Amino acid sequence: MPVTLDALNVAPEPEFVAALGAIFEHAPWVAEAVAARRPFASVEALFSAMREAVLAAPEARRLALLRDHPELAGRSARAGTIAAESIAEQAAAGLDRLSEPEYARFAALNSAYREKFGFPFILCIKRHGRASLLRQFEARMSGDIARERETAEAEVFRIAAIRLDALVTGEGRFRTTGRLSTHVLDTVAGRPAAGVVIELAEIVGPDEAVTVARAETNADGRTDAPLIAGRPVPIAHYELRFHIGDYFRRAGLDLPEPAFLDLVPIRFGVAEPEGHYHVPLVAGPWSYQTYRGS
Amino acid sequence: MPVTLDALNVAPEPEFVAALGAIFEHAPWVAEAVAARRPFASVEALFSAMREAVLAAPEARRLALLRDHPELAGRSARAGTIAAESIAEQAAAGLDRLSEPEYARFAALNSAYREKFGFPFILCIKRHGRASLLRQFEARMSGDIARERETAEAEVFRIAAIRLDALVTGEGRFRTTGRLSTHVLDTVAGRPAAGVVIELAEIVGPDEAVTVARAETNADGRTDAPLIAGRPVPIAHYELRFHIGDYFRRAGLDLPEPAFLDLVPIRFGVAEPEGHYHVPLVAGPWSYQTYRGS
Amino acid sequence: MPVTLDALNVAPEPEFVAALGAIFEHAPWVAEAVAARRPFASVEALFSAMREAVLAAPEARRLALLRDHPELAGRSARAGTIAAESIAEQAAAGLDRLSEPEYARFAALNSAYREKFGFPFILCIKRHGRASLLRQFEARMSGDIARERETAEAEVFRIAAIRLDALVTGEGRFRTTGRLSTHVLDTVAGRPAAGVVIELAEIVGPDEAVTVARAETNADGRTDAPLIAGRPVPIAHYELRFHIGDYFRRAGLDLPEPAFLDLVPIRFGVAEPEGHYHVPLVAGPWSYQTYRGS
Amino acid sequence: MPVTLDALNVAPEPEFVAALGAIFEHAPWVAEAVAARRPFASVEALFSAMREAVLAAPEARRLALLRDHPELAGRSARAGTIAAESIAEQAAAGLDRLSEPEYARFAALNSAYREKFGFPFILCIKRHGRASLLRQFEARMSGDIARERETAEAEVFRIAAIRLDALVTGEGRFRTTGRLSTHVLDTVAGRPAAGVVIELAEIVGPDEAVTVARAETNADGRTDAPLIAGRPVPIAHYELRFHIGDYFRRAGLDLPEPAFLDLVPIRFGVAEPEGHYHVPLVAGPWSYQTYRGS
Repeated sequence: MPVTLDALNVAPEPEFVAALGAIFEHAPWVAEAVAARRPFASVEALFSAMREAVLAAPEARRLALLRDHPELAGRSARAGTIAAESIAEQAAAGLDRLSEPEYARFAALNSAYREKFGFPFILCIKRHGRASLLRQFEARMSGDIARERETAEAEVFRIAAIRLDALVTGEGRFRTTGRLSTHVLDTVAGRPAAGVVIELAEIVGPDEAVTVARAETNADGRTDAPLIAGRPVPIAHYELRFHIGDYFRRAGLDLPEPAFLDLVPIRFGVAEPEGHYHVPLVAGPWSYQTYRGS
Repeated sequence: MPVTLDALNVAPEPEFVAALGAIFEHAPWVAEAVAARRPFASVEALFSAMREAVLAAPEARRLALLRDHPELAGRSARAGTIAAESIAEQAAAGLDRLSEPEYARFAALNSAYREKFGFPFILCIKRHGRASLLRQFEARMSGDIARERETAEAEVFRIAAIRLDALVTGEGRFRTTGRLSTHVLDTVAGRPAAGVVIELAEIVGPDEAVTVARAETNADGRTDAPLIAGRPVPIAHYELRFHIGDYFRRAGLDLPEPAFLDLVPIRFGVAEPEGHYHVPLVAGPWSYQTYRGS
Repeated sequence: MPVTLDALNVAPEPEFVAALGAIFEHAPWVAEAVAARRPFASVEALFSAMREAVLAAPEARRLALLRDHPELAGRSARAGTIAAESIAEQAAAGLDRLSEPEYARFAALNSAYREKFGFPFILCIKRHGRASLLRQFEARMSGDIARERETAEAEVFRIAAIRLDALVTGEGRFRTTGRLSTHVLDTVAGRPAAGVVIELAEIVGPDEAVTVARAETNADGRTDAPLIAGRPVPIAHYELRFHIGDYFRRAGLDLPEPAFLDLVPIRFGVAEPEGHYHVPLVAGPWSYQTYRGS
Repeated sequence: MPVTLDALNVAPEPEFVAALGAIFEHAPWVAEAVAARRPFASVEALFSAMREAVLAAPEARRLALLRDHPELAGRSARAGTIAAESIAEQAAAGLDRLSEPEYARFAALNSAYREKFGFPFILCIKRHGRASLLRQFEARMSGDIARERETAEAEVFRIAAIRLDALVTGEGRFRTTGRLSTHVLDTVAGRPAAGVVIELAEIVGPDEAVTVARAETNADGRTDAPLIAGRPVPIAHYELRFHIGDYFRRAGLDLPEPAFLDLVPIRFGVAEPEGHYHVPLVAGPWSYQTYRGS
C-alpha cells in the first residue's frame, strides 16, 4: 500500500529500508545507501539517489543486481520464490499463462541468454506487449556483453522507477505511466456518440488478438476511464473495435443490410509506453476518420 | 463465348435456341418462346421478353423451372450433372471446397428446404458471399410457400440475367455487374500514394477471412484494375488492408517502431451487388480517413 | 460585483431587494415579491420564483415591464438614462458604435415596432450577433400582438436569467453561458500544433466580418482560454482562420509558393447560444478536416 | 484556328512561316529558321527546334526579341498595336480592365523596369493571377541584368509554348495546360452530392476576391467540366465556396438556423500552373474534409 514521501523522509532508518527494500530486487542495500541522504524534495530526487547508489556500487554488487534478478517465465516464478512485485508484473504480461510450447521457448531463450551473458534476461515487462517482449529477447541475444550489461541495468532502473512511482506518493512524481483513450463523434447528429461499445485488443500474432479492455461511450462520447492508464502502455500493436453500426441503427438511421460500416477496426502501434495516445473515431454511417490526438 | 445481339437477331431459330437454351436451367422452352419476337432492340428487351415468357407459362412449367434447379452444394454438383454455368457459379462461391461438416450442413438445409417447399433452395450465389449465403438459407427456411415461390423465381431471373449479360454483347446492356475499387492518397506529400500493397479479404466468420484480391497502387494511387469488376460484388463484409507503414518508410519518413499506422484495415459491408463501391484511403502516418466514394 | 446565494438568503429584505432590484429592468417589485420565499436552494430556484412572480402579476404590471424596457440603440441608451446593465449589454453588441445610417435604421424600426405593439422591441442581445439581431427585428415586426407579447416576455426572462447568473454565485447555477473553443492537430508530426495563430471573425454581412478574438495555440494545440466563454455565444455566422501555412513553414516543411494551404478558413453558424461549440482543425499541408466536437 | 502538325509538315515554306510567324512576338525569323528542319515528329519537337533557333541566334536578335515584346498593360496594348494573341492574353488577366491608379502603377513599374534592364517586363501572364503578377513584377525589379535576361527569355519561351500548343494539334503534344476540378460527397447518404452550387474565386487582395467560375454538381457529384482546364491554372490563392447548407436542407435534413455548415469555403494556393488540382469536399452537416486529390 502507498506511503507518502513525507512519511518516508522522517521514518526511522529500518522502517525506511523495509519500505523500499524491494524496489531493487534482492537488493535492500540500495535503500540503505540513501537513507542518510534524506529528506528528499521529490520522489524523482529519491529515485535519482537510488540510481546513483547503484552506479557508485562496487562492480560485484552491480553484477549481482543483474544475476539475482528472476528469470522471465522462469522456474522461480513458477516456484513462487521471487519478489511479490515480480510475480504480479509477470502475471500482467500473461507470462504465467504460457502454453507448454511457449514456456519451453522462454526456457530455451533464458538458458541461451544466461549462458552467453552470465545473468538472466531482464526486461521491464510492463512496457511491452507479448510480441514486443519476444522481439526484444531475440534482438538482445545478438548484442555484445558490454552493451547488454548496460541495457540490462537500464531495464533494472525502469523496473525500480515504476515500483517506486506506484509505492510512494508525493509532490513532483516522475512519469512512469502512459495513457490510452478514445472518443467517438457522430457526424450525422454533430454530437458525441453515446453507448458505442468499444473493444481494445492487443495483436499478439499474425492471426491472434487478445481483448484487453471493453467499454461503452458515455454521454460525452468518451469512456468513463481511459482504456489504459496508471501504468505504461505496453509496446504493441493494438486494434480498437467500434460497434458503430449498432449505434447508428439505434439512432434510427436506415442502414442497408449489411451496413457499410458496422464494426470499425482501428489498428495502431504504441512505441512510447509513457506517451498519451488518444485515438478518436469521427464517424458517420458512410465515412470515418481517426488520428493520433492528445 | 460471347455472341452479339445482332447475330442472335438474324440467326435461324434453332441456332438462337441453342445459344440461349441454358440461360434458364433445363428450360430451352423459354428461348423457344421468344424466338419469334425478334428482333430485339437491346439485351434488356430480350431479357424482358424471356421473363414475360416465364410469367406467362402454365403453372406446371413455372414450378418445374424451380424443381429442376440444381441444389447448392448438392449431389448433382458433385456428380457433375448440372449445367456448366451452375458448376462455375458454385465453384466461384467456394461451394466446391466445403469441408465435410459444411457439406453436411448444406445437405441438411437442402433436405429440410425441399421437404418444406417442394423445390430446391435457389439463390443467385454470384451475389452473395459465404456468410450471406448461409444467412439467406436460414432466413428463407421460415417463409411461407407463396412468398418463397416468388422469391425463388426472382432468384431464377437474377441468375438468368447475369448469364445473358455475360453471353450477349450489344447496345443497351442492362447492369448485372458491380464494382469495388480503391485509391490511396498521401496527405504528407499531397499526391497519390504509389506502391502501396493492398489486400481485400472477405470476412466469412467471426475469426475467419479469405483473401480475395491483392494489388499494388500505381502512380495514380489506384490499382490497375478494380478489385472486383465485371460481376456482382458478393453481399458480404470485407476488409481492405493497406500496408501504409511500408509505404511511408520507403518514402523516407522517420516513423517510430512500431509505427502508429502500419497495416490499416478498413472493414465495410456490401449490400448492393450491382453498386459501385469506391473505398479510398486518405492517409498520413498519424491519421487517415475513408468514405464510400463513387 | 458577485454576491453569494447564501448571503442573499440571510440578508435583510431591503438589502436583498437592493441587490436584485435591477435584474428585471425598472421592476424592483419582482425582487420584493420573492423576498419572503427565501431561503432558495439554488440560483435556479431563485430565478424560477422571480419568473413566477412576474407571471402572477396583474396585467398592467406585466405590460409595464415591457413598456419600460429601454429601446435597442435608442435615445435613452444614448442619453444614459437606462440601467447600467443595459448599457453594457448594448455596448457589447456594438450598438453604441452604430453609424448614423444604422442608427437611423434602428430608430425607424423601433418607432414602427412600438407603434404596432405598444412597447419597445425587446431582445436578449447577448444571444445575438449583429446580423441575427436585425433578422429578429424584421421577423418579429410581422407577428401578431398576442404572440409578440409572449416572445417579448420570454426575452425579458432571458435577460434577467443572464444578469442573475452573472450576479449570484452558488451551488446549482443554471446555464446561461455557452462556449466556443478550438484546437489544432498536426497530422504530419502526429501531435498538437503549437504556435498556430487563430482569428475568430463574426460575419456581419455578405462582405463584412468583424474580428472578435485572436489567439495562438499552446503546446497542447489549444488556446489558453476558450475563444468565447462565460457568456452566451451570439447567434451568428463565424469564421475561424488558422494560419497553418506559417506553422508548417516554421516546422521546416518544404512547401510550394504559394502553399496549397496557408490561411484555412472554417465558416460555421451558431444556433444555440448556450451550447458548447468545439471546432477543431486536424490538418497537414495538403489536407484538413473539421467537425463540431464537444 | 488550329492547324495539324501533319499539314504544317508538308506546307510550302511561306505558308508554314505565315502560320507560325506570331508564335514569337514580332519574330517570324524563328519560324523561318526551322522550316527546313521539317518534318517534325511531334509538336514538342517543333517547339524544341524553335527554342534552339532562338538560343543560336546572334546576340542582337535575342535582345531584340525581348525589346520588341509588348509591355504589360502598356500603351501599345491600349493603342491596339500588339499581336492579337497578346491582347487576348492581357485581357484574360484583367489587364485591360485596370483602374486608373492600377494603370498608373503598372506604367510606373514598366518605366522603372525598362530603364533598369533596357527591355520591357515580360511575363507569361496566363500562368499568374493578378496578385502573383504584381509580386513577380516587384521581385524581378531587384534582380541583376544577366539573370533577368535569362528569366525574361524563359518567359518568352513559355508564352510561345502555350501559343504553339493552342495552335497546332498533333500527336505528342506537350503539356502547357493544367486543371482545377472538384467533387462533393455527402457522408450522410454515402453518395455523390448532386445540385451543390459552387463558386471559384481568385483572391486578389486581402479583402478582395473575384469570382472566376460558378457551377453546380451533377449526379456524380462533379461539375460537368473542370472549373479550369485547357489552359494553365494561374498561380494564385483561390477560394472554392460550396453551398452545402442549401444542399442538406433540400435533402430534408433538419438543420438548425443558422446551420452549422452553410457556405463552406476552401482556400488554397496554386503553385504549378500545369498541375492537376483536384480539391474535393467530403461533407456532412457537421463535418467536412478536403485534400489535394488527383
